[in-house]
Amino acid sequence: MFKTLFENVRAQCPLIHNITNYVTVNDCANIVLACGASPIMADDKDEVAEITAICAGLNINIGTLNSRTIASMRIAGKRANELGHPVVFDPVGAGASALRTDTALQLLREIRFAVIRGNISEIKVLARGSGTAKGVDANAADRVTEDNLDAAVAFIKAFSRETGAVIAVTGAIDIVTDGSTAYCIRNGHPMMSAVTGTGCQLSALTAAFVTANPAQPLEAAAAAVCAMGFAGELAHARLSEADGSATYRNNIIDAIYNMTPEMLEKGAKYEVR
Amino acid sequence: MFKTLFENVRAQCPLIHNITNYVTVNDCANIVLACGASPIMADDKDEVAEITAICAGLNINIGTLNSRTIASMRIAGKRANELGHPVVFDPVGAGASALRTDTALQLLREIRFAVIRGNISEIKVLARGSGTAKGVDANAADRVTEDNLDAAVAFIKAFSRETGAVIAVTGAIDIVTDGSTAYCIRNGHPMMSAVTGTGCQLSALTAAFVTANPAQPLEAAAAAVCAMGFAGELAHARLSEADGSATYRNNIIDAIYNMTPEMLEKGAKYEVR
Amino acid sequence: MFKTLFENVRAQCPLIHNITNYVTVNDCANIVLACGASPIMADDKDEVAEITAICAGLNINIGTLNSRTIASMRIAGKRANELGHPVVFDPVGAGASALRTDTALQLLREIRFAVIRGNISEIKVLARGSGTAKGVDANAADRVTEDNLDAAVAFIKAFSRETGAVIAVTGAIDIVTDGSTAYCIRNGHPMMSAVTGTGCQLSALTAAFVTANPAQPLEAAAAAVCAMGFAGELAHARLSEADGSATYRNNIIDAIYNMTPEMLEKGAKYEVR
Repeated sequence: MFKTLFENVRAQCPLIHNITNYVTVNDCANIVLACGASPIMADDKDEVAEITAICAGLNINIGTLNSRTIASMRIAGKRANELGHPVVFDPVGAGASALRTDTALQLLREIRFAVIRGNISEIKVLARGSGTAKGVDANAADRVTEDNLDAAVAFIKAFSRETGAVIAVTGAIDIVTDGSTAYCIRNGHPMMSAVTGTGCQLSALTAAFVTANPAQPLEAAAAAVCAMGFAGELAHARLSEADGSATYRNNIIDAIYNMTPEMLEKGAKYEVR
Repeated sequence: MFKTLFENVRAQCPLIHNITNYVTVNDCANIVLACGASPIMADDKDEVAEITAICAGLNINIGTLNSRTIASMRIAGKRANELGHPVVFDPVGAGASALRTDTALQLLREIRFAVIRGNISEIKVLARGSGTAKGVDANAADRVTEDNLDAAVAFIKAFSRETGAVIAVTGAIDIVTDGSTAYCIRNGHPMMSAVTGTGCQLSALTAAFVTANPAQPLEAAAAAVCAMGFAGELAHARLSEADGSATYRNNIIDAIYNMTPEMLEKGAKYEVR
Repeated sequence: MFKTLFENVRAQCPLIHNITNYVTVNDCANIVLACGASPIMADDKDEVAEITAICAGLNINIGTLNSRTIASMRIAGKRANELGHPVVFDPVGAGASALRTDTALQLLREIRFAVIRGNISEIKVLARGSGTAKGVDANAADRVTEDNLDAAVAFIKAFSRETGAVIAVTGAIDIVTDGSTAYCIRNGHPMMSAVTGTGCQLSALTAAFVTANPAQPLEAAAAAVCAMGFAGELAHARLSEADGSATYRNNIIDAIYNMTPEMLEKGAKYEVR
């Protein structure tokens, strides 16, 4: 199934509008190109409605939000909803400041998201409507493990039903659910956390997959999560002893570029709960 | 001839002021360094006139324009004109939103550009004073091919005469003209479109070449276009099977860094029409 | 000694708040991760005080300052001072515009810095309270050489005593001093100047080292300077003939990722004056 979903990305080359942070924006653009889609970055309130309209999907990431870009996120999100374009949301650092938490909650009230992708701590903050975070990485205490997996799945399913969005929580084990079905995904490599923005890149990739497969947001999001994790595995296998995190970063994007739909189909490691 | 033009960049190490987008800015800075020039990025209205004044050339790119940076582009462009510094303009996404089209047209009215570099769709929007674009890439219908090359050359020559700027239209075949002479350039590789910002990088490179060769903007712009395309060829030749678009991105900058003026002279593939 | 200082970074994984420029921000985030610390980038005035509070150290870099981010730098710096968090300052381009010079001097008056890291021209502008720069690189006339090293050390020591900050001046020879002891460091490679942002990366790395070793800001800053220079040497040794500045950029981050505290202890090249 993932094979067909990826083929659709490559065949349709959907144009994705990204309002994202300036830290990882270049990698986000390059991974969208690598998967076969096409990115456009635009964040001024005087153009985002038009840019969203010429695109087929929207990716909103609050990694370096500010008052100017928050206004643009709201305008673009509403316009995408009007047009029926899928919107992916990455609540980077929700819980790390009131501005991030409040903005994430406001966007959640005002915009209908196709997919929300974050780490477990960010998703907990959104689900509870408050909370703290220790930065942009998940708190150790929150982490999803084999021991707490069932409880985590139940929690994330409930949040999915509440929001109507597919929720993709990524970490050592990834969970992607639409409230009834949950994909528990075991692709990936721990070294991915040594590269800034692998989460941001995944959100952009998810936007490409969901936009090319609008009727299957759950499966498309799961396919994107598997693709990113599988790329992390392939990228790691290529590392020589002297290579480090910068080479690894490049190898991940290279792996997405060279990944075929057949490879994804075979490389995806998941179970459904 | 391209040999001497490139030698001048390496010998003079011109300082280039860039007001550019946050997506590809790092690659722009690195390619300017790789060619032997020196970049400075500054976009606040309270300093751009001074920064332009200590530099020898200016590169304006509207890739992620906003109200704050548009004001800065206007101030810096006017100051560069007063000082007689060459100004390169990259109208990224003109036609994709009214803000981009209007800003590009306003800059065109207010600032005398040495070179305008864009894809064919962007240049058509500037020439017609209106129009639409499907993102930041050229529309398929607009593309310059062997079949419509003469008509494209005539159109671009006319726009060059109208603006007084050298026009560099890049695509599968590149056209660089000052209104009377046109270089039709066949360097490059299709994989360059899988890397974000190769066009932005070329504009920054063009600014370095034109600034080091102020009396020959046509030839300097043509040399920069050949250098970028030739780098794309050299970079592709180095790729191993597992390498993809991220490695290719690095290889392109590496190729500019290692390119000698003699290599450019021999590698440039162009005809004059 | 440097061995222990580096071990502390790896063991504590300090969270570093960076308010930095959009040119080199991705490399700054990746080098902070590569050394074993954790970065967060946030620059909106409505959240920087909170973000600073959840972090253990702060890195302020004025590379692409604007009115919005200058306000945030002031707020974050004052908050970090209140909390006793070390603050590193990188006065990129001080002297290149009145805005940069005035902002740097204002921050110097208002914020107590643990370390100020810049090139010799930037530090001279700060010390004299005025002056000009020819861009973001050191003026040739200012450069620290074996011939003027004693005078440079004396000058930088005096500025350190005046500000109470450890001063790290980097160039062909680096000088790091707390006003009484000066480390003269001869790690590094000339090719580092062909990569944008090696200075910015060093400032971010310094913030990680100083935050993990708050009682030893002099030694921690010297260790960071040695680590960056040593990474530049290791990265250069790995280059093949066709590799250039982009591969070198990656190799530097890779070298920090793979550097062990023992390697740093052995590779550091310094004398104390």
